[in-house]
Amino acid sequence: MSNTPYPEINSKRLWQRHLDMARIGATDGGGVHRLALTEEDIEAHLLLVRWAEAHDFTTDLDAIGIMFIRRAGKDVSLPPVASGSHTDTQPFGGRFDGITGVLVAFEALETIQEAGIETRHPLETIIWNNEEGSRFIPACMGSAVYAGVETLKAARAREDKDGVTMGACVDTLKKALPRAGVRELGAPIASFIETHIEQGIKLETSGNTIGVVTGMQGYRRFEIQVIGEDAHSGTTPRARRKDAFVAATDMTHALREILWDDKDEMRYTIGRFDVLPGGISVVPGQVNFYIDLRYHDKDTLDDLGDRIPVVCKAHAGPCQIKIAEFITQDPMNFPENIITSFEEVADRHGFGHERLYSYAGHDARHAARLCPAGMIFIPCWKGISHNEAERAEPGDIAAAAQVISDMLIDQAK
Amino acid sequence: MSNTPYPEINSKRLWQRHLDMARIGATDGGGVHRLALTEEDIEAHLLLVRWAEAHDFTTDLDAIGIMFIRRAGKDVSLPPVASGSHTDTQPFGGRFDGITGVLVAFEALETIQEAGIETRHPLETIIWNNEEGSRFIPACMGSAVYAGVETLKAARAREDKDGVTMGACVDTLKKALPRAGVRELGAPIASFIETHIEQGIKLETSGNTIGVVTGMQGYRRFEIQVIGEDAHSGTTPRARRKDAFVAATDMTHALREILWDDKDEMRYTIGRFDVLPGGISVVPGQVNFYIDLRYHDKDTLDDLGDRIPVVCKAHAGPCQIKIAEFITQDPMNFPENIITSFEEVADRHGFGHERLYSYAGHDARHAARLCPAGMIFIPCWKGISHNEAERAEPGDIAAAAQVISDMLIDQAK
Repeated sequence: MSNTPYPEINSKRLWQRHLDMARIGATDGGGVHRLALTEEDIEAHLLLVRWAEAHDFTTDLDAIGIMFIRRAGKDVSLPPVASGSHTDTQPFGGRFDGITGVLVAFEALETIQEAGIETRHPLETIIWNNEEGSRFIPACMGSAVYAGVETLKAARAREDKDGVTMGACVDTLKKALPRAGVRELGAPIASFIETHIEQGIKLETSGNTIGVVTGMQGYRRFEIQVIGEDAHSGTTPRARRKDAFVAATDMTHALREILWDDKDEMRYTIGRFDVLPGGISVVPGQVNFYIDLRYHDKDTLDDLGDRIPVVCKAHAGPCQIKIAEFITQDPMNFPENIITSFEEVADRHGFGHERLYSYAGHDARHAARLCPAGMIFIPCWKGISHNEAERAEPGDIAAAAQVISDMLIDQAK
Repeated sequence: MSNTPYPEINSKRLWQRHLDMARIGATDGGGVHRLALTEEDIEAHLLLVRWAEAHDFTTDLDAIGIMFIRRAGKDVSLPPVASGSHTDTQPFGGRFDGITGVLVAFEALETIQEAGIETRHPLETIIWNNEEGSRFIPACMGSAVYAGVETLKAARAREDKDGVTMGACVDTLKKALPRAGVRELGAPIASFIETHIEQGIKLETSGNTIGVVTGMQGYRRFEIQVIGEDAHSGTTPRARRKDAFVAATDMTHALREILWDDKDEMRYTIGRFDVLPGGISVVPGQVNFYIDLRYHDKDTLDDLGDRIPVVCKAHAGPCQIKIAEFITQDPMNFPENIITSFEEVADRHGFGHERLYSYAGHDARHAARLCPAGMIFIPCWKGISHNEAERAEPGDIAAAAQVISDMLIDQAK
């Protein structure tokens, strides 16, 4: 057993692990394309398990495919003190979103293990499943199921664009990990902390290394089907068209009027917009599109979100419309004692830090329903994320690992 | 040899041939999905060849896959007098667009054959290739190559969405027709006439059976790539977004200002609009969309078409833009003597008729570059076309076949 209570993490190993992981699903553009539970994502899980087995850490899987890498504690009756994030990426995403939080957490486990420090609580690295939500809707699905926000049955039934179910993919992951134990959904966790790149420019601007996250904005997501009628683009005059493209873009334009705020704080995004049948010379008879609306204030989010269906209906023209709100999350805040602990550890190491609000959603949102939870951010080059050009610096990643390692020791001792 | 110079066509057989053809690529929705040179389209060609061989008609293919079914004439030095249309359909299209013009032309050949009428010119049914342009861009490809509007090399190199080339598909068609002769591209044709459903409601409204087509509107088609930057929808404020969806819909909205005319004669359509990468929580970094612009007056079409790139660039916001005009066709008119001949034949049979302008493009446009050409329309239920619900009446189709049969005899004698 080491004499120092806070061993130093191995920054060189941690960066090498990032390089190793970035090869799995590497894109020509220098990013990573590793959608949830694809062959690549499963390979990332297997690589983690190989690293874990080198330390005799054990691995469990739950029914929604969340993976728990555990270093045993002295008191077997106590729940784990945990950190982690996710291995899946956006389509043609970056090398840091998600995986940095996993590798930092795992580096902390290795550091504590090599220092021979014994803790009362077990320590865990959690790899939440399908965080990005780009293959299976919704995002943060694994943590939502674990925390009881979504049902296992509904989540397993979700299909990707090829009709493959989430459930079938979880079963494939299980088969790839025959030695994994079984974790009960919702089994107690003593605390959970997560590291993530900021995906914004506040830390880069201030020069601070650690952003201590105070809370997360809420969001509401809508699927809108606009149903018109296919028609010949040469023969059909405007007056006889039921043009779903015209109606849908009337809606997206009209929504700008209420959602584009002067302060530029409201996040209104159309990221998916499918025009059918998609022939150049066919007036489109259907458009399916999705609205992602995010904000930090619950009352405003409630009010503006409720106006979306009203505005869309008012601009449907000759088309029919179907609107479904398929996910809703209120804004949330992390407990003050976790925030303060992060600040104390950062101060001890001389890492510049500041409090930040998260404009992205993360699994820590759902973990916070089960246990005290918190997050730290590290700088993200130019704020670019969900993009192959995403970049974070080895030194900042190492700082985060040091903070997480110290925090885990404090919480698990 | 028959005593009457104008034998009566067989309307029952003609309708039965429509039913037989509608089975090839039949959809659950009562339409036909028979894209150019797919297995289904080749099967349609083979069925025509079987019918042709029963009469000892010969079959030729040219280098772009146009099929010519020939009934020999007395003077082997004379070029053929021809009629026809196409066998391919739009995705989930109807049972009459294209195939009616083929079956009407073939019925005329059979009628004349069975009446034992000898003609100086050979008679032909032409099955142009890839008229719809929904599998391989552009539409009317076969006739464009035959008339020298597009090069064979460029046409054969066109790829469908799976990367299969037009050339490879033409080779497959040739293999399926080992007994077909070879027709030189651009070989002379004495005259060409085409029957088509109106794809509009003028005949239905007036109650006339035959629309004699005076000309065809011109069109200009543009591909527009809007290149922004993928970004996180939760963290990226509007001011830092390069949102390709916002820019592209600004363009399509601004274009309405100049292209939506009071008379509702301009045809401005966005039928294909691809948003990339297509994640719900990703600000889209790219949109590729297509503009189909059609009008009857060349000067106006020239002027407004030229303004499209200007308007798009003015509304690109923070995005980059690439614009390519990938197809241009001027408005055209059919020769007056063909129009008058159609009217005389229709009068002789007591078929109500009127002159119509074509708002759709057809192969007769390109044929008119090679020889005197013309078209007739028959009523189309509610004007619905490029749609599974497309419908034409057996009596109207029979009337068209009678007109075409009489015309072929007059022109070939």
